Amino acid sequence: MDDVQVKQVLNTHHNTLENRGRLLVKCVDKPGIVSVLSTFLYEHECNIIESSQYSSNPENGMFFIRIAYHGDNLVAKAAKMEKDFEEVAHTHGMEYKFSYPAQRIRSAIFVSQEPHCLIELLWEWQNGDLDTDIVVVISNHETARPMVESLGIPFHYIPANKEIRKQVEEEQIRLMEQYEVDLLILARYMQILTPDFVAHFENRIINIHHSFLPAFIGAGPYERAYERGVKLIGATSHYVTNNLDEGPIIEQDVERVDHRDDVTDLKKLGRQIERRVLARAVKWHLENRIIVEGNKTIVFH
Amino acid sequence: MDDVQVKQVLNTHHNTLENRGRLLVKCVDKPGIVSVLSTFLYEHECNIIESSQYSSNPENGMFFIRIAYHGDNLVAKAAKMEKDFEEVAHTHGMEYKFSYPAQRIRSAIFVSQEPHCLIELLWEWQNGDLDTDIVVVISNHETARPMVESLGIPFHYIPANKEIRKQVEEEQIRLMEQYEVDLLILARYMQILTPDFVAHFENRIINIHHSFLPAFIGAGPYERAYERGVKLIGATSHYVTNNLDEGPIIEQDVERVDHRDDVTDLKKLGRQIERRVLARAVKWHLENRIIVEGNKTIVFH
Amino acid sequence: MDDVQVKQVLNTHHNTLENRGRLLVKCVDKPGIVSVLSTFLYEHECNIIESSQYSSNPENGMFFIRIAYHGDNLVAKAAKMEKDFEEVAHTHGMEYKFSYPAQRIRSAIFVSQEPHCLIELLWEWQNGDLDTDIVVVISNHETARPMVESLGIPFHYIPANKEIRKQVEEEQIRLMEQYEVDLLILARYMQILTPDFVAHFENRIINIHHSFLPAFIGAGPYERAYERGVKLIGATSHYVTNNLDEGPIIEQDVERVDHRDDVTDLKKLGRQIERRVLARAVKWHLENRIIVEGNKTIVFH
Amino acid sequence: MDDVQVKQVLNTHHNTLENRGRLLVKCVDKPGIVSVLSTFLYEHECNIIESSQYSSNPENGMFFIRIAYHGDNLVAKAAKMEKDFEEVAHTHGMEYKFSYPAQRIRSAIFVSQEPHCLIELLWEWQNGDLDTDIVVVISNHETARPMVESLGIPFHYIPANKEIRKQVEEEQIRLMEQYEVDLLILARYMQILTPDFVAHFENRIINIHHSFLPAFIGAGPYERAYERGVKLIGATSHYVTNNLDEGPIIEQDVERVDHRDDVTDLKKLGRQIERRVLARAVKWHLENRIIVEGNKTIVFH
Repeated sequence: MDDVQVKQVLNTHHNTLENRGRLLVKCVDKPGIVSVLSTFLYEHECNIIESSQYSSNPENGMFFIRIAYHGDNLVAKAAKMEKDFEEVAHTHGMEYKFSYPAQRIRSAIFVSQEPHCLIELLWEWQNGDLDTDIVVVISNHETARPMVESLGIPFHYIPANKEIRKQVEEEQIRLMEQYEVDLLILARYMQILTPDFVAHFENRIINIHHSFLPAFIGAGPYERAYERGVKLIGATSHYVTNNLDEGPIIEQDVERVDHRDDVTDLKKLGRQIERRVLARAVKWHLENRIIVEGNKTIVFH
Repeated sequence: MDDVQVKQVLNTHHNTLENRGRLLVKCVDKPGIVSVLSTFLYEHECNIIESSQYSSNPENGMFFIRIAYHGDNLVAKAAKMEKDFEEVAHTHGMEYKFSYPAQRIRSAIFVSQEPHCLIELLWEWQNGDLDTDIVVVISNHETARPMVESLGIPFHYIPANKEIRKQVEEEQIRLMEQYEVDLLILARYMQILTPDFVAHFENRIINIHHSFLPAFIGAGPYERAYERGVKLIGATSHYVTNNLDEGPIIEQDVERVDHRDDVTDLKKLGRQIERRVLARAVKWHLENRIIVEGNKTIVFH
Repeated sequence: MDDVQVKQVLNTHHNTLENRGRLLVKCVDKPGIVSVLSTFLYEHECNIIESSQYSSNPENGMFFIRIAYHGDNLVAKAAKMEKDFEEVAHTHGMEYKFSYPAQRIRSAIFVSQEPHCLIELLWEWQNGDLDTDIVVVISNHETARPMVESLGIPFHYIPANKEIRKQVEEEQIRLMEQYEVDLLILARYMQILTPDFVAHFENRIINIHHSFLPAFIGAGPYERAYERGVKLIGATSHYVTNNLDEGPIIEQDVERVDHRDDVTDLKKLGRQIERRVLARAVKWHLENRIIVEGNKTIVFH
Repeated sequence: MDDVQVKQVLNTHHNTLENRGRLLVKCVDKPGIVSVLSTFLYEHECNIIESSQYSSNPENGMFFIRIAYHGDNLVAKAAKMEKDFEEVAHTHGMEYKFSYPAQRIRSAIFVSQEPHCLIELLWEWQNGDLDTDIVVVISNHETARPMVESLGIPFHYIPANKEIRKQVEEEQIRLMEQYEVDLLILARYMQILTPDFVAHFENRIINIHHSFLPAFIGAGPYERAYERGVKLIGATSHYVTNNLDEGPIIEQDVERVDHRDDVTDLKKLGRQIERRVLARAVKWHLENRIIVEGNKTIVFH
């Protein structure tokens, strides 16, 4: 309760986004990889800001690394760097991906009737805490239209049900292409997606499931949690694959409940968990912190 | 991701609000008090739904109880019940308060520039999770006006600073009276309130302080938390008294941080804690779950 | 780091255990029950210290209450009170149970090779935090003998496997009877119990399961949690019924894990969760805080 | 509850401790440091297993890194590697430290009357979860002697108070030298240490303070937490400096409390927090995960 103007700490992190890059690499583990990568960056006059690595098995496994770096005039030299890296990658059998915070990821949000996850994402986004352009919201209900359009985001209503799934998805894919969508966020979108649809967006669809998976997989998780008398309920954010609720888990969280909580209470509390779990997962994806390996995620914090 | 219509559990709790009452009682502890109260309710044909009690010291202390009850035609008989209770209270030296969920508390929100706590309260309110009428929002900045007015809530801009504190508060009090405000929520309102103002709303002003009180009391808590190198940061919701940041604590929560988090990161994370801590405190106040005793709160969950 | 003698707060709670009683009641919900019970206690010159109640459905359901009370000379008058209560209970169709903190529950612990849960219970017990007499420890391994016997607790080694299950259980039951055991705690006892054995101790066997049930029900939960790539692991304490891992849940808790944690790490972390979850569940049982209703528990905190 | 022999995941981590090394480095940040270090290790035929780094300010600050590596025949070549590294360190102005998991740190524990933190450490140690040799326990009370000696650990009773502080500390330092102690753990040792004593063990004394520092700094934290009516209590583990309770914080944690908890309850709950917070801090120190920088810690997880 004081209006004292706080001396702003100079946050150089965010002032120089255009000179920031990130490199994700995956390869067979062997001595010298960090040396190769760090020397490459040094020779291209880039400074490593943050680096996280993981070896699935130190003696005989896969090696994963995420490096965030800074380089003067990075925009000008990025293309050449990427070109130069091709040989390095080839020599060492690396899968890799460069990304640049200044090139914002384009996200679409799918939502049905319950708006809490959508509201959370829009709130974080307005607040500058979600580094993405939300380019379109698509829903099988009209409920969210006013809120979405008031923020200047295009809203498309596409009614959906089992019978018309094929044409619905064609229309959705058309819109995804029109809006050049990189990431699709299912913010409580209550329709099954077909394998064909999922195949268009491998490891680029993030869903929020309203249970602590793998408990209560499938429909009605809060009802079943109530029946079982669990003392904690949770939510799970995961990449969507063709195995329903079985995709690679990105984030999970729980809250304590007790015998007094009926199904309505569980759902109310569950909404709080769902929105924060989804928001975290999306943030980590946007910061290129996630590598999918088999049916698991490596999340570099 | 499934559209299955969930069989709604019949939630009789919320269907009969007009027949619900709550009784908060405080008196010197002695045998027979629960008997007196429960017999009174039984004789007035009310059924106890929920009851929580606390004895500060079982052998020689104060007794506190919160009873939620249901009675057919409660609206019709509430006045007579309250009248009848006067004698009971007099006999046993009870301080007490009846309240009725159907009579919604009227809340005002004060906010400065940072909107996250306001947005959270509005979100919970839209969602039906905050049983109050938000009758007015007052700010010393224009920032929040569009959001507030788009929800049909009156917004008043009253510029404020130390020099004009007296006339600002007179205007605020005038508005509080005009809107018949029961509860004042300081959702990151960054102005000191005078003792005169606070006296108008004893135990009816809830503030959110951006630290885990009593650590980092006063200004700049995130800056000081950063300097000290703490591994958890927190927020505290409390009733406002004339001792700055010293009022009765209602709720606190924390999140883990580490050496990589700079002040900007702490503030970002802090916003998440602040909004949920304030929302919980407000909810408990609205449900008459809180008794202030000395400089502490008894919160009946 | 200071030897200052802290002024001990006079803790009258613990000085008068012999005059303390607890009453658990379950009946069909209807108006006046609290009045009946509190009046009964008042007429027997007892003072209610703590009271918690729960109605499964306010308009048409079951009513549960736990009352802790204090009465001068309770030891002398307890028998008569219980006798007097029979009529009250009969009139109102109550199931009920009186218990007295001064009459300590007699516990047995079953353990296999992993000692962490046993050690935790013994630690809490030595510390005075577990109000029970641990009268015997039984194991299918000799590992824990020195630790148990050094505390003066009888230790019985009974080798066990599927083939000799019947005679093993007969021997165990014989010992349970010999030691007059009220509560049996399975502190990581890795043998299946037969329905016959379980029937001897209905709602009096507490187990710790090394997963966040119902996820990873059955064997190898940490291996399966690792395979699934969950981001939280947990443990569950429950009463043992004849449906393996399906008994009424008393308590659960979780800890965060990530991709770097292999199965060994999960087990190590899991031990920390298991021991605290089991210790809490046992404590609540000892304080008669738990009512089993169907396949769920009501835990009055 | 099943005796199925779980297929043990081959944990190569722990089989080859003798070939493991760790390197902690601190220097002014500039491009190329990771390259220098990783190339050095590669040229010495070591493979980086785990690497964590931190830049206090990416454009103009300090750089910190912890590298864990594996090298065949590391024991044989470690001395030469360290010798070779001198030049690298000199060139780049690095402060650094090599350590080897196979060379176990020698710890002493100081304790007063309350044994819970000591018991926790001994438990973790017996369990193989604390990679240290506990070479001596010293106490100003005889309480812990049986427990300590039963584990084969030398126990020394040195009565202590303000008047004899000087000779007490001389005796303690003599024992520290005799037992060649690397790390001193204050497991609720309730005596002030003098600056002279602390100077002998810079950044090598870990204390557990029974509050969520900086709240309730000094004596009687639980009493003061009770008075203030906080809703969470905590504990803090920190390196001991000459400013009482002001040393660099290593770890903190909290638990929820409410109005029903009296001081005795807070202390009981506090013991649970204290023991786990201290154990974590000690573990991280033993794994050389901590760099002290100014009055803060960098903890590489």
